[in-house]
Amino acid sequence: MDSLLDVRHNIPWRQAVVSVDQFSRTDIEEIFSLADRLAVGRTMPLTGKCIVNLFYEPSTRTSSSFYAAMTRLGGSVIPINEVNYSSVTKGESLEDTIRTLECYADAIVMRHFDDDASERAAAVASIPVINAGSGAAEHPTQALLDLYTIQKERGCVDGLTVTMMGDLRYGRTVHSLTKLLRLYDTTLKFVSPRELAMPPDYLSAGDEQSNDIDDVIGNTDVLYVTRVQRERLSKEIAIDDSFSVDFAYSVTRDHMARAKEDMVLMHPLPRVGEIPSELDSDPRAAYFRQMRYGLHVRMALLVAMIGRD
Amino acid sequence: MDSLLDVRHNIPWRQAVVSVDQFSRTDIEEIFSLADRLAVGRTMPLTGKCIVNLFYEPSTRTSSSFYAAMTRLGGSVIPINEVNYSSVTKGESLEDTIRTLECYADAIVMRHFDDDASERAAAVASIPVINAGSGAAEHPTQALLDLYTIQKERGCVDGLTVTMMGDLRYGRTVHSLTKLLRLYDTTLKFVSPRELAMPPDYLSAGDEQSNDIDDVIGNTDVLYVTRVQRERLSKEIAIDDSFSVDFAYSVTRDHMARAKEDMVLMHPLPRVGEIPSELDSDPRAAYFRQMRYGLHVRMALLVAMIGRD
Amino acid sequence: MDSLLDVRHNIPWRQAVVSVDQFSRTDIEEIFSLADRLAVGRTMPLTGKCIVNLFYEPSTRTSSSFYAAMTRLGGSVIPINEVNYSSVTKGESLEDTIRTLECYADAIVMRHFDDDASERAAAVASIPVINAGSGAAEHPTQALLDLYTIQKERGCVDGLTVTMMGDLRYGRTVHSLTKLLRLYDTTLKFVSPRELAMPPDYLSAGDEQSNDIDDVIGNTDVLYVTRVQRERLSKEIAIDDSFSVDFAYSVTRDHMARAKEDMVLMHPLPRVGEIPSELDSDPRAAYFRQMRYGLHVRMALLVAMIGRD
Repeated sequence: MDSLLDVRHNIPWRQAVVSVDQFSRTDIEEIFSLADRLAVGRTMPLTGKCIVNLFYEPSTRTSSSFYAAMTRLGGSVIPINEVNYSSVTKGESLEDTIRTLECYADAIVMRHFDDDASERAAAVASIPVINAGSGAAEHPTQALLDLYTIQKERGCVDGLTVTMMGDLRYGRTVHSLTKLLRLYDTTLKFVSPRELAMPPDYLSAGDEQSNDIDDVIGNTDVLYVTRVQRERLSKEIAIDDSFSVDFAYSVTRDHMARAKEDMVLMHPLPRVGEIPSELDSDPRAAYFRQMRYGLHVRMALLVAMIGRD
Repeated sequence: MDSLLDVRHNIPWRQAVVSVDQFSRTDIEEIFSLADRLAVGRTMPLTGKCIVNLFYEPSTRTSSSFYAAMTRLGGSVIPINEVNYSSVTKGESLEDTIRTLECYADAIVMRHFDDDASERAAAVASIPVINAGSGAAEHPTQALLDLYTIQKERGCVDGLTVTMMGDLRYGRTVHSLTKLLRLYDTTLKFVSPRELAMPPDYLSAGDEQSNDIDDVIGNTDVLYVTRVQRERLSKEIAIDDSFSVDFAYSVTRDHMARAKEDMVLMHPLPRVGEIPSELDSDPRAAYFRQMRYGLHVRMALLVAMIGRD
Repeated sequence: MDSLLDVRHNIPWRQAVVSVDQFSRTDIEEIFSLADRLAVGRTMPLTGKCIVNLFYEPSTRTSSSFYAAMTRLGGSVIPINEVNYSSVTKGESLEDTIRTLECYADAIVMRHFDDDASERAAAVASIPVINAGSGAAEHPTQALLDLYTIQKERGCVDGLTVTMMGDLRYGRTVHSLTKLLRLYDTTLKFVSPRELAMPPDYLSAGDEQSNDIDDVIGNTDVLYVTRVQRERLSKEIAIDDSFSVDFAYSVTRDHMARAKEDMVLMHPLPRVGEIPSELDSDPRAAYFRQMRYGLHVRMALLVAMIGRD
């Protein structure tokens, strides 16, 4: 583990994106500036380049996003899904799989069920590796696109009050985003059932915790909603079927009426009732624009990591 | 449903191809003329464009055809198969899936098990949607390619006698083709077991119905054969194992001997005995050329819908 | 079968690569020379071309290698995996599948569980077919890349002593490579448990057989290691759990110490213990470079078979 932590802390993000811990504000500004430029252009700087989408866990949303990012830049993608059933893993170590695939491609985008998988991959790879979600630990490109969404929707990040609501205990998305927001001058508020509260490691002096969105909705600039998975909650507390956890941590028309006029409503998707579709036409609903910002951030990462100078 | 019917009847086909009901003869002539030009050219007008092949049901034949059409035009394809197992549908509505994927792509080609799926998709999508088969209802691009095959093989459609044989009750292919042929001056004949006859909705005065191909083979210009699925037929009537339904609605060398010398023999494929492979070398056997015509029709649709002017 | 054997022996390899029996030294030199040129260049001679990767058996390693080869040359790939579950094979004959796919693509790369599948495909196809592994019989592109690896690592093939170790009875890789090496002036040695010895058909006067790597390690220029699958061995002999077949036919640090300084250590991968990862840093360990050579050989085959003159 020690050597893996070394990887995380010392490896430049252009070589391997394994954790949000690798990024400084300067790095982020550089990536976002590149994303801005790629969003409008029709350049194809990765023509002739090839990445592998190596997904040990299915995630059509994330793999499609990288797929589209790469092909829009002129490159191509080798899709490797359901790796468990494939010959790649017939008893083969992750390290051997990586060393094989690096012979074919210019970068590896990887989702894996182990927390340290992308660090292990980065430790042996001679080509860039991008963590597209590893275990419950990290999903750094999601955090970057969430931050980019805030900046694009509000013009800046400094000075904002960001409220995260839902399953804050297990959600790797909110963990990673929280870390990135600490690089900025933001006020953070966390709304969740007590059993799914933000783990202490991620908390800081000045954070506000609550179990009721009504406490904070009026002062929130960005409301980031995640799903409370009933199956997770029921592990923690005895809930009877009549307890509507979905409803309790959902956003309603009434909440939106009391929210700021320029509040940004975000969700990593998929949603299952936390935000009813009747809110989709509210101009503050940014969750589908968030998907498009994600495309641009991933294009920027690919160009920064494997483009020619 | 009302609003969905509105979609079907009012949406221009360049925005969404959901049903053959959208096409006039003029539309079809325009598509076929474009298909002719794309078939011979080596232009790549969709370079930098990207479509999603969103297949809730597997259909390698149709998805491969769109895949080839798109890449031959210079574009790329995000393949999403077996959607049921993927994160896209983890409780997510079809509408949310479409609104996510439209952030990544320039068009969505969709096969779904629900009859109204492509209309629901078209109702929310801001990019073109193409129905590549929805439930038992529609498969409009198959009908277009079938019609294009007739035109290419015979030079015109008006004046022809077209006979459809096999499972006419459940075959969406023959339903859609029948609708398109009504736009032309054609004579239609239907040959099937009584239990699998053409539904009355699709019939018109002047159509001939029979349960024996021998009645009509001599006067037929186009013989369109589809499979009688034993499992479907056995739902309708008690058949014993010795009843050879396959044989009864198959084409033989003897039929071909009595058929016109310029008859066109078609089949949407896959076939399982309805047309024995010994007929493949007969110049009238057009079913493999039909596949190639399909490629050109799909190229034409893609260019018409997402190409730049 | 007779007509299929005719295919194998008479069909030019540019039309269909079905067996190593098709290649002369001159053919091989031409392919290797093309591979050398494509390895360094950044040309994209297959822009606008399209192949199908038709894999009836999963093989991520081989399909990824062809995928990367094709896209690096500017072309695109239609991936068809797990064909058994797809509509292509719903009762459809292999011949019909091939005749359908040839309407969409410029070549078909095919892996199949039947020994004669690629010959059957080649017999009906009007576009090039490449056998990417058929049954237990042939894997010609693997044999070519193995031979290319030897030539690149040693500068030549003539005069070398090549030792193959492991499961020589069922390994199609070693069978095909043995045939190709007979075209050169090489000395062959075979090391295996008696139950998994090289079949007599592949043996020649002058070959040395042994069941102990220690007998031959000192005189070996190329050591080609394959996996002994415990499940296969246990079919042949009663082995108790304590018998470490893995260990008995593995390479150790000690073996490497007694091997020639310029010996080439190869393995088709995946490995499961036959070569411990501690040997990876030995400069003689060529198995990951072997993957890269494979990419170049497959690029050369694709250009030779479907490139424009």
